[in-house]
Amino acid sequence: MNDTLEALERMFNLNSVAVVGAPRTRPPGWPGIFGCIRDFGFQGRLYPVNPAAEEVEGIKAWPNLASLPETVDLVIISVPAPAVPEALRDCITSGNRNVHIFTAGFKETGEEEGIRLHREIEEIARHGKLHVIGPNCMGIHVPSKRFATWVNPSPRSGPLAFISQSGGHSQDFTAFANRIGLYFSKVISYGNALTLDSTDFLEYLAADRETEIITMYLEGVKDGRKLHSLVSEIAPLKPVIILKAGLTEAGTRAVASHTGSLAGGEKLWRGFFRSTGALSAESLEDMAFQALVFRHLKNEPEGLNTVVIGHGGGIAVSAADACSKAGLAMPPLDGATQKKLRPWIPAGGNIIRNPVDAVPVFRDTDMLRGVLQTIADDPAVHMMIVSLSLDWLFDTDQGIQVERVADFLSEEARGSVRGKPLVVSWRSYRNDPRIPEIGQKIESKLLEAGLPVYRSLDWAARSLSRWAGYHLSQKKRAEWEKGREEPRRRACSVYR
Amino acid sequence: MNDTLEALERMFNLNSVAVVGAPRTRPPGWPGIFGCIRDFGFQGRLYPVNPAAEEVEGIKAWPNLASLPETVDLVIISVPAPAVPEALRDCITSGNRNVHIFTAGFKETGEEEGIRLHREIEEIARHGKLHVIGPNCMGIHVPSKRFATWVNPSPRSGPLAFISQSGGHSQDFTAFANRIGLYFSKVISYGNALTLDSTDFLEYLAADRETEIITMYLEGVKDGRKLHSLVSEIAPLKPVIILKAGLTEAGTRAVASHTGSLAGGEKLWRGFFRSTGALSAESLEDMAFQALVFRHLKNEPEGLNTVVIGHGGGIAVSAADACSKAGLAMPPLDGATQKKLRPWIPAGGNIIRNPVDAVPVFRDTDMLRGVLQTIADDPAVHMMIVSLSLDWLFDTDQGIQVERVADFLSEEARGSVRGKPLVVSWRSYRNDPRIPEIGQKIESKLLEAGLPVYRSLDWAARSLSRWAGYHLSQKKRAEWEKGREEPRRRACSVYR
Repeated sequence: MNDTLEALERMFNLNSVAVVGAPRTRPPGWPGIFGCIRDFGFQGRLYPVNPAAEEVEGIKAWPNLASLPETVDLVIISVPAPAVPEALRDCITSGNRNVHIFTAGFKETGEEEGIRLHREIEEIARHGKLHVIGPNCMGIHVPSKRFATWVNPSPRSGPLAFISQSGGHSQDFTAFANRIGLYFSKVISYGNALTLDSTDFLEYLAADRETEIITMYLEGVKDGRKLHSLVSEIAPLKPVIILKAGLTEAGTRAVASHTGSLAGGEKLWRGFFRSTGALSAESLEDMAFQALVFRHLKNEPEGLNTVVIGHGGGIAVSAADACSKAGLAMPPLDGATQKKLRPWIPAGGNIIRNPVDAVPVFRDTDMLRGVLQTIADDPAVHMMIVSLSLDWLFDTDQGIQVERVADFLSEEARGSVRGKPLVVSWRSYRNDPRIPEIGQKIESKLLEAGLPVYRSLDWAARSLSRWAGYHLSQKKRAEWEKGREEPRRRACSVYR
Repeated sequence: MNDTLEALERMFNLNSVAVVGAPRTRPPGWPGIFGCIRDFGFQGRLYPVNPAAEEVEGIKAWPNLASLPETVDLVIISVPAPAVPEALRDCITSGNRNVHIFTAGFKETGEEEGIRLHREIEEIARHGKLHVIGPNCMGIHVPSKRFATWVNPSPRSGPLAFISQSGGHSQDFTAFANRIGLYFSKVISYGNALTLDSTDFLEYLAADRETEIITMYLEGVKDGRKLHSLVSEIAPLKPVIILKAGLTEAGTRAVASHTGSLAGGEKLWRGFFRSTGALSAESLEDMAFQALVFRHLKNEPEGLNTVVIGHGGGIAVSAADACSKAGLAMPPLDGATQKKLRPWIPAGGNIIRNPVDAVPVFRDTDMLRGVLQTIADDPAVHMMIVSLSLDWLFDTDQGIQVERVADFLSEEARGSVRGKPLVVSWRSYRNDPRIPEIGQKIESKLLEAGLPVYRSLDWAARSLSRWAGYHLSQKKRAEWEKGREEPRRRACSVYR
């Protein structure tokens, strides 16, 4: 293991933390870094460093890092920008090399003083061989260690990791993912990337046993070639989903103002996604929704042929358009399959070809079982989407049948029917709070059962398509590799 | 006024309705057409027609249309498909020519019997000069007349009209629009379009004084040339927003199964939108969000230059990308304007160029006023988006400041600041029900004040861009027309 990976191993398994600049009283509006670490219940040794304080929140304060009884796993620097160089020198003197600089006000300001300070701390860090996360960032969040630097993180761990150049996004994305039942092994907000960059975190997470899916929010990358080769090696083993920001002109300018990074051109990044096998996300939501399918679906698809089973004719037409736009194939159901479905689905007011639009089927779970199994038995069908219009189902019996359908799906169709992958979407347009309440209830039930569920068919179709596309192209790649005389030694450099 | 328009005038101002096939008891699962009309409180004369009943829901029933004491403004046919021809003949015999056929099971089934029945009723309708809405549809909804054929419509009227080939969409779209404070003059679900087609309703609504914005869900159109010329004439006076379904191959097939229509190709429709000035919508939500800007913003924009004022660096970058993708321009703020903003917005941790990312500004409404006015005073700025990250604002004081900001915006910035159009977006990712609750509260407040508000910046940017694009291209068209020697007599044929 190289020096950087060793440092990261220590940081992510942290048992001792010093906060340089921990204030005597909490700042107005939020608990501050020190307050957040305490509030979340970090179990390791916590050292406030503040020469002007005897103690901080009842814990003995220390005048500087050199006075601490140990070198710590992580030093967090939270002093005004002009005092950061001095704090870094204190790190070097005291033998502390793992540093998170929270402070902002460096090159991202685009102003002379910020750029000068950036150069100064870069020089100090290089000279002192420091491993620096930041500056201008939230640092790391490790649920299993009860460690976080922000308000209200989840204490629950899970198989996702998130590498984020934005501190706000690291909080927003984890919160949103938590809401749909996705939890994290490690979260990193690394801001201006003074020494440690996305590629370092990526290399570490590639070999991290707690991480199965890697998500990233990138503004700029210092070593594009390294990112390319790393992602190419990791993608076949762990899906890498990337939200690349700053692909527009205005976005590029915003990136420069935010983390002082170079965003890179759109064409270049399109090529990157194509050749590495990474999945591209358009937004935080999109990234979470893609991760949701990877988290739950086990049976790899054999192709893109998808059948939507729902109710409502206009909805069926919209579903067909949405699936096609998302890149899914929607061939009409085989004549024999249609014939088998006919006893359950009368011709008038229903559609049977694909999408299947069949209100009566949702009023009886035995019928629904029969319909789903019949469709799944058609060898030309690869995947299925069940689309629930909650408003309509609600009208029949105030939600009783909706819950029965959810029970049925979570018991009998968790993730697949007869081996064919299945996802669920629901929607409610009505201004009746009881309906989204039922929606949330069935959503929790389905997610708990491991069934990806979405609040719009567009998202369901898009996520399913990305997931299926990933597996199909990885299969193609694997076949191509098998055919080569000298197979590439895969992923050896990232697996230690 | 021609015969068709006269018929529509009578139908939309209906004071007498007959329901052929009103059942003695309500069907299971929903109140039925007759039940819905009663439940909504239609004030006109209502005649159940059912030879097997003495009375329906306490109202005297009639054996057939000929036995009624009057010819009615609208006959609704809700009998099984094979009995529809007989019911239509009863219309002709009794002198009733305005008909809504609710029944499904005609050409949309794609089956022999349905196609035969379709031909039969087409022949009867043509011969009897009937004005038929449907079959296979929900018919009309006129809030001012307390008339509707479905469950839980809104009794409130407003300036939108909706022409929909799908019955489900007519319910879903109006419900969703109601949720964001948009209400309707007339709603039409017209299904298979036996005689009356979208163009007939469009022509009527063009001259309807209660209608200011026309929305449409189209699957197929019989007379494309007529639609083109009508929309071209109407668009400069009333925005026409169209969700065209079936533009993909699978969508085209679904359209055929749903309303038996021919969807037409994507290329053709792209040309249609470009040349008519109609606005294209991607989904029901998109259509409602576009209508929302048209409903509220009064000051026409002078260009596409947009400034986003929010908080959070990653969010600012995403905002820049979202605006650019939506077609808005985001030039950096003028140096002089940046200088004026500097006293309010310190360099460290904030962005000032555009987007403006400034947490402190949202903690003080006086500062927010100053910042908004300074930006609005920059002549290069045409429009503004205020982007609120509720999770973050909530942390500071559990929502007190959020409400203050909403009060400020709804009192002082309703729709514009110093004449520059303004929209608001908010977002919450946190799994804390108190935050979306506050979100809904401020949303109602802002909408009530006439300020378009969105739950994602993507939607805000997209809707603002469509609205601005419409006005800018209409302006260009008008200038071009002015330059012509013989100005086209505009819209004269549709305004009676």
